[in-house]
Parts: sequence; structure tokens; C-alpha cells
Amino acid sequence: MKRFRVGLVGAGSCVTMEMLRLIAGHPRLTLTRAASLTDAGKTLAEVYPFLQHIQLGDVVVCEPQMKDLAKACDLVFLTAPHGSAMDMAAQLLALKTKVVDFSADFRLKDKAAYEEYYKTGHSQPDLLKDAVYGLPEINASNIRRTRLTANPGSCPTASLLALLPALRLNLLKAGTIIIDAKSAPCELGFSGQGLAPCTACRPAGAGPNRHIPELLQEIQELGKKNMSLLFTPHLIPVNRGTLVTIYAPLRRGIEMERVRSAYEAGFRRHKWLRLLPEGVYPDLLNVRGSMYCDVAINADKKTGILTVMAAIDNLCRGAAGQALANANLMLGMPMDIALRDVPLAP
Amino acid sequence: MKRFRVGLVGAGSCVTMEMLRLIAGHPRLTLTRAASLTDAGKTLAEVYPFLQHIQLGDVVVCEPQMKDLAKACDLVFLTAPHGSAMDMAAQLLALKTKVVDFSADFRLKDKAAYEEYYKTGHSQPDLLKDAVYGLPEINASNIRRTRLTANPGSCPTASLLALLPALRLNLLKAGTIIIDAKSAPCELGFSGQGLAPCTACRPAGAGPNRHIPELLQEIQELGKKNMSLLFTPHLIPVNRGTLVTIYAPLRRGIEMERVRSAYEAGFRRHKWLRLLPEGVYPDLLNVRGSMYCDVAINADKKTGILTVMAAIDNLCRGAAGQALANANLMLGMPMDIALRDVPLAP
Amino acid sequence: MKRFRVGLVGAGSCVTMEMLRLIAGHPRLTLTRAASLTDAGKTLAEVYPFLQHIQLGDVVVCEPQMKDLAKACDLVFLTAPHGSAMDMAAQLLALKTKVVDFSADFRLKDKAAYEEYYKTGHSQPDLLKDAVYGLPEINASNIRRTRLTANPGSCPTASLLALLPALRLNLLKAGTIIIDAKSAPCELGFSGQGLAPCTACRPAGAGPNRHIPELLQEIQELGKKNMSLLFTPHLIPVNRGTLVTIYAPLRRGIEMERVRSAYEAGFRRHKWLRLLPEGVYPDLLNVRGSMYCDVAINADKKTGILTVMAAIDNLCRGAAGQALANANLMLGMPMDIALRDVPLAP
Amino acid sequence: MKRFRVGLVGAGSCVTMEMLRLIAGHPRLTLTRAASLTDAGKTLAEVYPFLQHIQLGDVVVCEPQMKDLAKACDLVFLTAPHGSAMDMAAQLLALKTKVVDFSADFRLKDKAAYEEYYKTGHSQPDLLKDAVYGLPEINASNIRRTRLTANPGSCPTASLLALLPALRLNLLKAGTIIIDAKSAPCELGFSGQGLAPCTACRPAGAGPNRHIPELLQEIQELGKKNMSLLFTPHLIPVNRGTLVTIYAPLRRGIEMERVRSAYEAGFRRHKWLRLLPEGVYPDLLNVRGSMYCDVAINADKKTGILTVMAAIDNLCRGAAGQALANANLMLGMPMDIALRDVPLAP
Repeated sequence: MKRFRVGLVGAGSCVTMEMLRLIAGHPRLTLTRAASLTDAGKTLAEVYPFLQHIQLGDVVVCEPQMKDLAKACDLVFLTAPHGSAMDMAAQLLALKTKVVDFSADFRLKDKAAYEEYYKTGHSQPDLLKDAVYGLPEINASNIRRTRLTANPGSCPTASLLALLPALRLNLLKAGTIIIDAKSAPCELGFSGQGLAPCTACRPAGAGPNRHIPELLQEIQELGKKNMSLLFTPHLIPVNRGTLVTIYAPLRRGIEMERVRSAYEAGFRRHKWLRLLPEGVYPDLLNVRGSMYCDVAINADKKTGILTVMAAIDNLCRGAAGQALANANLMLGMPMDIALRDVPLAP
Repeated sequence: MKRFRVGLVGAGSCVTMEMLRLIAGHPRLTLTRAASLTDAGKTLAEVYPFLQHIQLGDVVVCEPQMKDLAKACDLVFLTAPHGSAMDMAAQLLALKTKVVDFSADFRLKDKAAYEEYYKTGHSQPDLLKDAVYGLPEINASNIRRTRLTANPGSCPTASLLALLPALRLNLLKAGTIIIDAKSAPCELGFSGQGLAPCTACRPAGAGPNRHIPELLQEIQELGKKNMSLLFTPHLIPVNRGTLVTIYAPLRRGIEMERVRSAYEAGFRRHKWLRLLPEGVYPDLLNVRGSMYCDVAINADKKTGILTVMAAIDNLCRGAAGQALANANLMLGMPMDIALRDVPLAP
Repeated sequence: MKRFRVGLVGAGSCVTMEMLRLIAGHPRLTLTRAASLTDAGKTLAEVYPFLQHIQLGDVVVCEPQMKDLAKACDLVFLTAPHGSAMDMAAQLLALKTKVVDFSADFRLKDKAAYEEYYKTGHSQPDLLKDAVYGLPEINASNIRRTRLTANPGSCPTASLLALLPALRLNLLKAGTIIIDAKSAPCELGFSGQGLAPCTACRPAGAGPNRHIPELLQEIQELGKKNMSLLFTPHLIPVNRGTLVTIYAPLRRGIEMERVRSAYEAGFRRHKWLRLLPEGVYPDLLNVRGSMYCDVAINADKKTGILTVMAAIDNLCRGAAGQALANANLMLGMPMDIALRDVPLAP
Repeated sequence: MKRFRVGLVGAGSCVTMEMLRLIAGHPRLTLTRAASLTDAGKTLAEVYPFLQHIQLGDVVVCEPQMKDLAKACDLVFLTAPHGSAMDMAAQLLALKTKVVDFSADFRLKDKAAYEEYYKTGHSQPDLLKDAVYGLPEINASNIRRTRLTANPGSCPTASLLALLPALRLNLLKAGTIIIDAKSAPCELGFSGQGLAPCTACRPAGAGPNRHIPELLQEIQELGKKNMSLLFTPHLIPVNRGTLVTIYAPLRRGIEMERVRSAYEAGFRRHKWLRLLPEGVYPDLLNVRGSMYCDVAINADKKTGILTVMAAIDNLCRGAAGQALANANLMLGMPMDIALRDVPLAP
């Protein structure tokens, strides 16, 4: 079988660790470059001792030079921060290397919205229309054909997967969707910058949020106009995982039975989406290290509100695993290669 | 100063431990009885080694005999399960001993609602009207006069405190209040029965919930009719604490400035209610071991939704500490004796 | 490739969960029986929701009938408690089914020592000499030939692997070896019986310990007489993992350089034993979900003491993974099938 | 009662938080200065939200100016790093202000040992003989008379308290004492600098260690010559606490009964030292937020080794609480003012 050469540009976050774990277990990928400004010259195993005695751990970290990366790699995973990823991606694409970008730089189709929410100019607006939003359950066929995937973060991933059947099968009426998200502090922006004390348990914001334009864009893509959105992120003291509890207004007369059959139908084709039996709730323990999104639903008669609860591993499904699924598709391989792990519970 | 004799009936939960911690630090209470079916004959220090070398640890656990308890105690804290507390309370009251009851048996004024939600008959309906709902910020003057307090649990406590100014100052329009609660597994019903694995991180239910009739009753007491309620409990892997995030519909035109001034006014008289400055969010770390309820607020313009976030220590403020505040009032003492601890953070 | 039929007899512990995870990922094993007294009639996915939508999760739990198990299985994993495993094993073996036993029933060659330390008679003394102590780094060739493997627990596994080169290459003088072990509470004996509160952090005993005769037996097998042993177990609040810190008396004149070269030589042939570079210490995070045993060493000049620090995943390497490695060998397969996972860190 | 004015010089560590918690609860201390290079200009409540609505939270952080501190304070708590504390202390003392120093700068009587272990010169050697090692169970009377206390860290505190009766009552023979320490990452040097990921569980070193000269100095003070020492620190994922397990060689013929009576006698006068009953082990949960040191002992017949296990709260007993006990003594107050909290368990 043909092997592919991949590279990684990153800065020592938990997401980098997860990406390395997954590439190390991939039968058809070879990591030819691991680029970082901070650790250049060390081997990966020196930086990340969990890679001791694993072949990929011998790779020596280099500085991020796009020309060199392009020459050495068929595809590059970019885990650089918002704002600096866009130019790297443009250079790589110009040199015929495919890109999976973890930043927000290519998630929004609307340049103005990007600039408003991320407080920085966008230097590569022409690439926005080429980039595909990397949620395989929605965009698999487009991802197969693109050179540039914008990899979604963990909260939008969990939220969109949780809402998929409700949106596609038109269960909701116009109104407000409330997303109450609970996440591990360990992620690209958090643990890399050490902003969150590890035992904090608190909201991480309220009101306007960067996830909102991205979520609304995708919700509209899925055919639902006239929705507004409220998103409240929380930090919880877990190593891995994102749990979202979503409250959405059901159309009049839609009851539990109808919701359940919609979710059963909507999830049937998607092996990573697991609708839990009645009385069982998604637990972060049950998805750890895997691509599964576990979902429970409830339609409340008195209030007419649909509650959808979803759990994913924020580092795997919500970041590196999803990036690998996208890369698998972009390189012409089955989507789930190296992503078949049974969850590590407990 | 006059000392009072108190007793405790319980079954070895985290709440029992917290109650003992607080009584041990109280300058005017003497624990004369600690009754339990499971540990009778041992000293408290044998059952709970954190009490080693502390005077209260020498108390020998006895079996729960109401006559004996009534004779030995001015007031009894009952931490027996729902259904079995009601008769104990009735006996103690008949023998002129005051009662703070941790169970749900006296929280609902409506016997039928109790029997529907708790699936058991109520043998002491006459006491329902005498019992005072033990939330001191609402009912302090009634608590001072009653012989029977129904001590609220941690989720209703955090929720009602968080909503207090919004309800009293009429900020909300008719509609649905959504409460998304995140709690430590360690509580009366949970850890006592070992139902929740300690590292679970998941919803603990969806749809109809026992807290709903209790919350609606109190919300109506505070003057707000026509509200419906959705309550979703979650378990998170922390030792102590309940965090609630509440979504409520603002009346048209009510904006952030108005909300903030309402909360400032509403909290001013209550030393345990802390409205956090803008951009700071309630963290379980910051209330640990204390009676504080930390609150942050946000009024979202686009959706018209008020978000209230509140953190309490579920064992202290949400259980034993609140019980002690109630007991202090019922015995004619200042409410905050032995409840002035600075939070233990981290 | 030939597939094999395996069965599992257990009682719902963390070890059972890990065994199921590993069998589910094994390309040549089919789980034909999952027997338990407590959950018979349910599917595995109902009992363990992490198995939802995974084929193995459809297996229906049955009651433990040895005849039926023997007929349906080439090999059975027994996770029954000490004392009750021995007769099950004897029946299965009599019916030509191989057994990997997780209990202590076949670990000690000396019937009298077993009866002294486990306070129960041994009904199958004839099997003691047939049973092989299931530590593949020591006994791989014997395990390949046996019908009965006594699977070691996590503390002896970590301790023996950590001492292997020191014992084989004769670095130690006669005297006392001290083992200070730190373990997750979640294991066969602990979490099954709920003995340890999940946030406890304390020694779990001192003085005589059941691991001592087992460890001394194996230390003597490795050629070292005249050693005595002190073993102190501790519980630490982690999900998974056993960390041992071992203090052993070096022979006069043996210095750091010599120790390091002995460990390098001793570990070279063993892919799961990782000697860490100087200044790096074994961390439970770096072995999670894997078979690795990470080891650091130090020879202290002033005191003549060798310190060996070793970390393993107590559920995988210290229980289910090791059992699977043994089963792989007993069934004629390569030892590491389905055991090549890169550690899940963080 | 006379009140005293105290100041704090620090840099935002967990120890600072604990010091503030304790001062806030002290009936006779007023915090007149809180000095820090990083947060000057903010109120303490802004930096540490757990102090919201607590009077001490209104203190505005200032820059560390020794003249100003000396004028405003009767005593200053210095939590500056090793090397920079010594000159601050000298200036304060010259201006007649007492000092409790958290750094290692005044712990060692031997200037050369300090310079060897801390890799920096000592600019105030004359103060070394004046400084008192701040362990109240050993030095209370000297602490009462001194102007400068060197506050010990958590591992030496736990270790010396654990060994106190064994050393004073001459239970040990010459040889090696092994200390295996397990600590929360949150302390002066760790969390301040963010060196330890919060879920790490690993040794933090091996071989020569800065605690060794300090421990040997105090062990010799207690009358025991000819001992050597091995100290292995470990990081465990807890919020607070230090657990030490100590292995020491008993003199021939000393058995369990003798050891227990020595410990009972040795601990009798010390209210914070709790010898646990047989079969009970010190748990970090049981000392949280308190000054207690919980101790269990075992004398192993076969090996002649005394095992002493001790648990303390590393932030309270092992840092800020001990500093406050020392300050209480230095200011002529009872040692335990504001240090009578019952442990917060769980």
C-alpha cells in the first residue's frame, strides 16, 4: 500500500501530543517533519517521553520552514495559533502540499466575521472559499477533494454532531439554541499558554463567543435559518473531554418518539455517532481516546425544549483525531484508518 | 453565653462529615448524640479519622432512638433518607425538640406533589404547613420562629440564590428557565449509596426532576408566576461543589446595566452572596468550605437571555453549613456563628 | 489466520472493562462467553456503555457454568476472587480449556504459604506445579507451553520488571529491598468491593503483605537468595497506574555507570521495558493504556542504595494486558498482538 | 488585645493564597502591606477572587520596598525565592521588623553547604546563627525569642515530625534513613513557576537533594549522629498535601510495642501531632486546611525496619500555617491562634 509523508507544525500543546500518538499508530503515514520554534534540535521522544522507544519518537524537531516542509510532506498538520496559520497554509498550498489547519483561520467563509471575532486582518481571503469545514459527518465528500481543511474545535464539533438530526430533519422551530459546554482545560489555546489552573471549575466566559459565527454558519448550511445562539464554555478538572448540553426549541407537536426515530435515522450511517439507550447518558469516560460522539436526547413536554447531551474526547475527536480523519480522506484512504481504538475506560 | 445541645441522625455520608466539622468548630453547640444504624458503638473519631484528637471525636455513636434524642438535645439535625425522616421529625417535635431536616420530606407544601415526585405516601401532612424552607436569604425571620426547617439541597440553593434579584426585581418575562447544574458526586444521596463512580463526568438525568416542584414553589413565593422550568443535573469529578448556569428570559428592554444594578441592590444585604466583577466567573475553588455563593451575570442582547452563573460548596452552603445557619437562627443565635471561614483555595 | 474463542469470568471490575477493551481490539480472538453472577441477561454494552456500537458489546452476559465455558472457549480469563478461582480453573483444565487466572490462587508454588497469607485452604495443590507465573519477560517460553497461567498483579509486575537487571546481573548484596508502591484504587480487589474512597491518598497497609511471598519466590527464581522484603502499598487518586519506588542495597563498589549499562543490557531484548534517559522519571501519564514499563535508576554513592522507579498502567500492563500477552503466547500467537497501543498521554 | 501589623512579600503562588486565607481569619493581625512585583496596583480580591467581600481583599498590592514595609509592619512574611530573600530579610531586620522567611536562605547553619546546594553565594552569613529553624514542636522557645525564623518546607516538616520520637527516644541505630515523599505540585517553587503539569504522577528527582543537608542538620540537633539519608520526592495529582513514608533502621530488639509507647509519649505534648490507632493510616483528606500531622508507625520484625507514615497539608502545615504559628510565637501570642480549623474532609 502506498505510504504518505506528513508533517506537523506546532508548539507543544496537548493537541500536538495527541496528533503524534495517532500518527505513530497509523500504518500508512510517515512523519517526515515535526516543526516547532521552541524545541528544535531535540528528538520528539526527548520532548514527549511517552514516545520513548517508539519509532516516531526518533524524529528530530526542526524549525518551521515552509519550503522544506512542502518538499518533505504530502500533507501538513498546522497547529499554529490563529492569525499565523493563514500564511503558512498559503505557502504550503502554493507548493502543492495539502494542509489540515487546526486554527480558526479558514473556518469562517465570511472574512468580515473573522476579522471582527478574531481582531486581526485576514491576509488570504481567496483561500476562504476553497477551504472545507472539516467535519466528516457533514462534509466527507468535499474533504476528499480539497487541499485545505479547516479542522473544527471540540465545542463546535460536539455541538454540530449533537444537533445534526434535529437540523437535517427539521425538528426545531426558529428561536434560540443554548449550548452549555464543559471542557478539559488541556487544548490548543489553554494548556499551551497555561492560562487555566488545572483544578479550576468555572465558566470560561459568557455572552459573545468566537464559536458563535462558526456554529451559525454551519447551522445555516444544514438548512436552518432564523436561529440565534447562546454559548457558555466551562472549564472542568478533567484530562480530556468535552461535554455539551444543548437546549433547543422543538417545533410544536414534536414529541419524544419522533425525536428518537429522527436521531436513530440520522445517526445510522455514521459509525462514530452513538445514540445511547434511554436512561443512559454520555460520559467522558466512555469516549476517551476515541472518535465516538455519545449522544442522549430528551424532549420535554412541558417546556417544548429538546435537550441534547453529547460527549467527545476533545483531543481526539475534537482535534487531532478529526484532523487525521480529514487527512485520511484528503489522501484517498478510508476515513477511519488508525482511528478504530476502543475507548479507554476508565 | 448559653450553650445548646444538638444531635445528629445520619448514615455516614459526606454531609455527615461536613456537619461534624462545623459543629466541632462551633463555640456554643455541644454534640450530645450522634445516631446511626451502621456505626453504633464506635467513637466518631474511629468512623471519621479527621476527628482524631478533636473533642467531638470522642462522642460514641448510638442507635437512633427518638425519645433519647429528644431528651438529650435542644435541636436535632436529621440526615435520614427521604421517606424515613418524616416520622422521626414528628416524634422529635412532639417531644419539644427542634428539627433541621435534610431530606425532601418537608420541602414541598403540596402533599400530592411530594407523593408524585418521591413515590411514597406522606404520613405527616399536618407538619407541611409548619415547616419553613430553610434558605436564610429568603426566610430568615420565619426560620427564627419555626421548630422545623426543611433544609434545601445544593442545586435548589444555588439556583434560588442566583435568581433572587431577577425574581424580586421582576427582570424576567414569562417563559422557561433552564438550569444546567454541575455537582460533585459526594452528597447525601450519591456518595452514601455509592451510585456514582468518582471520575464520571456526565449528565445525571434529563427531563422531569425532583428539584422542579421545589424550585417552582419557591419561584412563585418570590412573586413570579407563569414560569416553567427545565433542570439538567450533571456529575463532575470534583470533591465538593455545585456550579449552576441558568438561562432565563429577560423582559423586553432590560439590558446589562439594569441587571447589574438589580443584582448589586439585591445582594447588598446578604453577606454570603458575592456578585463578581465583570469578566470574573464563579469558580468552585473560591467557595470551598464556606457559605459564599459566587455569582456572575450576563444579559445577552441578541437573544434576550439572562445568564446567571453561581458556585457554592455543595456540602457546606448546599447542605451542612446551611443547616447550621438555620439552627443558629432557630436557637436565637446570630446566623453566621461558626460559618465565617475564608474559602480554602486551592 | 486461525481465530480463537475466548471466555471471561468476572464480576464487573475495572479489570473486566480493560479486558473487554483489549479483546475488542484483537484481530484473532472472538469473545464467545462473558460470565458473571451479577449481570446475567444483559448485553455487555448495557453493562459497560463504552462498548456501545462495538461488536463485542452485543455479547449477552451468562452465568458462570464451567462445562458450557469449556465447550465454547479455547481459553478462559478468570477474574474471580482468590479462593473461588482454583476450582473453576481445575474444571476448565479438565475439560481441555486453557486458563489465565487473575487471582492469587496459582501464584505461589508453596501451598502452605498460600494458606497462611490468604487464610483459606487450597483445594488444587496438584495444579500449583503446572501453573506458570505469567510475567512474559521472565517466563515467555514456559507460558507458551502451559495450560494455566497465574497472572501477576500490578505491584509485583512493576517491582519485578524494575529489579530484573539488578537481580540477573547480580548488582545487589544480601539485605532488605524496600518497595514503596503507589496505585490507583481501581483494581480487582479495590474497586470491585468499593473499599477505597476515590480521593483518598494514603498508605493502604504496612508490615506483612500478600505480595511478599510472591515477590520473594520470584526473586529467588531469578537467582537471588538472602534477600528480605518490605512492601508498603499506597492509594493515590488517579484513574489508572502503579508507580513503584524501590530501594535496594548495591554490592560494594557498584556505581552508576555500571548500573546503567546493566539496565541497558537487561532491557534491550524487551520491547515493553523502557529505560529512561538521565533526568527523566517514569510518569503514569506516559504509560496509560499500554504495556510499557518505564524505568529510571539512581545509584546513590553515600548510602550505597540503588533506587529504581517504575511506572506501569495497573489495568493494562498490571492486569488485563498482561493476561492478553499470556493468552497470545498460550495460543501460539505473537505476544504483542492487540498490545501495540501508543500510550494515551495526557 | 493588642493587634499587630504584618506584611507579605510574594509572587502569586499557592502559598501566598494560603497565607492570605490564614491572616484573613486571624483576630489580632492586620495586613498592612502585600508586596509583589507582578500585581502591584490591583486589590488582593482582584488577584485572588476567593477574597471577594472579605476585608483583607481590599488591600492594594504594592511594590516590595523594604523601608516602607519595615515602617508599616511589625513582622513580614517573605515568600521570595531562594537567593533574593536574604537581602530583603537583612534590610527588614536592620529596621527592627521581624521576619518569617519561607525560602531556604536561613535554614542551613553552614554557609558552605548552602552555597553548594543552592548554587549561589550567601550575602548575609552573620544572620545564619541568629535564624531559628521554624519547627515549633522542636524550637518553640527559641522561636519566641528570635527576630528571624527560617520556615521549613513541607517535606522536611513532615519528615522531622514523623521522626521526632524515634530520634529523641533513641530508637534508631546508625545507618540510612530513606524518605519517600509524595506531594501536591502546588507549592512555592512548583506552581509559581508552572513547572509541573497538574496531572503528572512521577518522581521529581533521585539522588542528591536540597532537603538532605537541612534534614541531617536537624537530625543531628535531635541527638542522632551517624545517619545518612536518601530522599525521593514524587509529584502526585492532588491539590494539597504531602505524604511521607519513611524507612529507618531500628536498634536491635526494639519491637512494635516499644515504638508505639515511644510515639505516644513523644506526641503527647504536641496538639498537632496525631498518632493514629493501629490499622488506620494517614490520609491527605484528613489533614486538609489544618496544622495536623497524622502519623502511623510499623516495626517490621523480619527486616528490623521502622516505617513511619505521615500526612500534612503542604500549604498550611508545610508552609503558611507553620509560618503563622511562628509569627504568633514571635509576637508573643499563643501559637495556635487562627490555626484551630477542623480539617476539611473530604
